[in-house]
Amino acid sequence: METLSVALGERAYPIHIGAGLIDRPDLYRPYLAGGSVAIVTNDVVAPLYLSRLKQALAGARIAEIVVPDGEQTKSWQTLNRVFDGLLKAGCGRDTLVVALGGGVVGDLAGFAAAVYQRGVAFVQVPTTLLAQVDSSVGGKTAINHALGKNMIGAFHQPVAVISDVATLDTLPDRELRSGLAEIIKHGFALDAAFVDWLESNVEKILRREHGALTYAIRRSCELKARIVAADEREAGERALLNFGHTFGHAIEAGAGYGTWLHGEAVAAGMVMAAELSALMGDLKKTEVGRVRELVRRAGLPIAGPALAPERLIELMALDKKAAKGRMRFVVLESIGRARLRADIDDAAVRRAIVAAVQ
Amino acid sequence: METLSVALGERAYPIHIGAGLIDRPDLYRPYLAGGSVAIVTNDVVAPLYLSRLKQALAGARIAEIVVPDGEQTKSWQTLNRVFDGLLKAGCGRDTLVVALGGGVVGDLAGFAAAVYQRGVAFVQVPTTLLAQVDSSVGGKTAINHALGKNMIGAFHQPVAVISDVATLDTLPDRELRSGLAEIIKHGFALDAAFVDWLESNVEKILRREHGALTYAIRRSCELKARIVAADEREAGERALLNFGHTFGHAIEAGAGYGTWLHGEAVAAGMVMAAELSALMGDLKKTEVGRVRELVRRAGLPIAGPALAPERLIELMALDKKAAKGRMRFVVLESIGRARLRADIDDAAVRRAIVAAVQ
Repeated sequence: METLSVALGERAYPIHIGAGLIDRPDLYRPYLAGGSVAIVTNDVVAPLYLSRLKQALAGARIAEIVVPDGEQTKSWQTLNRVFDGLLKAGCGRDTLVVALGGGVVGDLAGFAAAVYQRGVAFVQVPTTLLAQVDSSVGGKTAINHALGKNMIGAFHQPVAVISDVATLDTLPDRELRSGLAEIIKHGFALDAAFVDWLESNVEKILRREHGALTYAIRRSCELKARIVAADEREAGERALLNFGHTFGHAIEAGAGYGTWLHGEAVAAGMVMAAELSALMGDLKKTEVGRVRELVRRAGLPIAGPALAPERLIELMALDKKAAKGRMRFVVLESIGRARLRADIDDAAVRRAIVAAVQ
Repeated sequence: METLSVALGERAYPIHIGAGLIDRPDLYRPYLAGGSVAIVTNDVVAPLYLSRLKQALAGARIAEIVVPDGEQTKSWQTLNRVFDGLLKAGCGRDTLVVALGGGVVGDLAGFAAAVYQRGVAFVQVPTTLLAQVDSSVGGKTAINHALGKNMIGAFHQPVAVISDVATLDTLPDRELRSGLAEIIKHGFALDAAFVDWLESNVEKILRREHGALTYAIRRSCELKARIVAADEREAGERALLNFGHTFGHAIEAGAGYGTWLHGEAVAAGMVMAAELSALMGDLKKTEVGRVRELVRRAGLPIAGPALAPERLIELMALDKKAAKGRMRFVVLESIGRARLRADIDDAAVRRAIVAAVQ
């Protein structure tokens, strides 16, 4: 087991990473003083891991709240069901909420914990690679609103994250690769040495070797945590974590939400952003090749969906309008070194999109 | 105008108190950098003050969200209407939410601000005496759930509170007195000199003299702020602010919610708590007389509703069960000096209730 501390002042918390952690009572015990736990999970994960988690929590009063799998679960209706469950079980301020599942369960249960009785503690037990490397660091929780994704939420740090890499054994292949995209992104944006390591170990990750997974998750969380600690409320540096995401969001929207997984869209977006970096004179052509090659070896798409570049640009402009800001792109100066540029015009973006598909 | 700073570290904010403040653009200007404001108010307050507030905010893009008056407004449904209004108006993270109204509007708008896009700034413009002395300090926001009051909420400090005492000119008499009960409570629990002042000035407050109101609100906020700053998350000392509330909550529940105003119940609860303090040997009988007399002069009830003492005790026990704690009472050691006691049995409580009605 590896343990990483996310340093957020009085809200610092540990991330434990390793195989078989879900079964270890000692990892939960520090947060069980109240004697009451509410496990929030979904109907896909529950049959796989709920009884094992309950075993590890034996001794506590346990409420189970099982919600449907899928993004549509991040809704008012389901959130209210979580509150109903908490209230009917008599959960108080000393109840520990445990989120068992992927990003959707983490976002939903984390937000429920953030606002139930004005805030209770929660532990994340992420069971997807994406959740283990992404939502486990940063404290972002949210639900969707009919008029926008993640519109209602809170920054609420967990008291601990317990990432059991053995739970990835049951993860569908596409989802594994989607999580790997975010790991690769952390490397390209922030750490050249980690990219070297990934180039040597990507097949081990795809084979789900626990050792390689543990290292990749650990390093990924470490890189993200360093950024988040410096910029908890998303003022500046945290934007670097969005490498590939400006293009990626447009791809997700253009393909129709749910058609492309987030990581798949980010993967193709990274190739486009790398091409853009080269066009802007920031990145060498050979380095663009490294981005493209690692994405390919990870089994991720190197090109976006069959959409005209103009359509993607249109979607990015919509995104920009929603953010009420200038269009800003995260570009690479070199492998492992990202920076923000706000001086990029549509013509360059168009050429980058075209270059990416060639 | 008097200005008080509530010292909560990086989240310190000013409370401005005086007559005519609602019209002063300079008080809002520091928070309008985003150029976008959403005013949340109710259908009783809107006709009285909304156009004046909009005048003071001239220059900003203003969204108006008018909700129904009354406690039932602290619901999911109304909260969702607030989000609809914010999203339809294109409000972003730089939007300032302004809560114009009493405690219900402040709780609802404050909670909406706490979770809209993971938190936006909000200014409170309280228009009831209760909101000016109570919810303006402490950062508590919440809505109700079918299974409990204030079950869903957040601690979210406003960036400023603008308490215009002239808005109290239109406040119904019963509500004025209800707010005065909380002011009196701050004196009895925390500041003997303030009780002296209240004994000399209670009639001026009832006549709504702006000078007396300004002083009473300022001192009240100051006393509450000192406690809250020392105990932001309600671990210990903050409980002293609940003087009269253990009995008060039981009175409110026993009479049927909405029958007694909160301040009325707290007033009768303070007399009971004072009697209990005397019974426990903490407070002199003459000082109990001062509590009773000031409550009476404020036009507030000195006795609870026609309920058997056993029924009140039963209701308090339910409250205790909900809080999963020992029954704790805030008693007075002397006028202006409260403390918590957890060693009080039902027999003493019963005697105090009986003594209070005599």
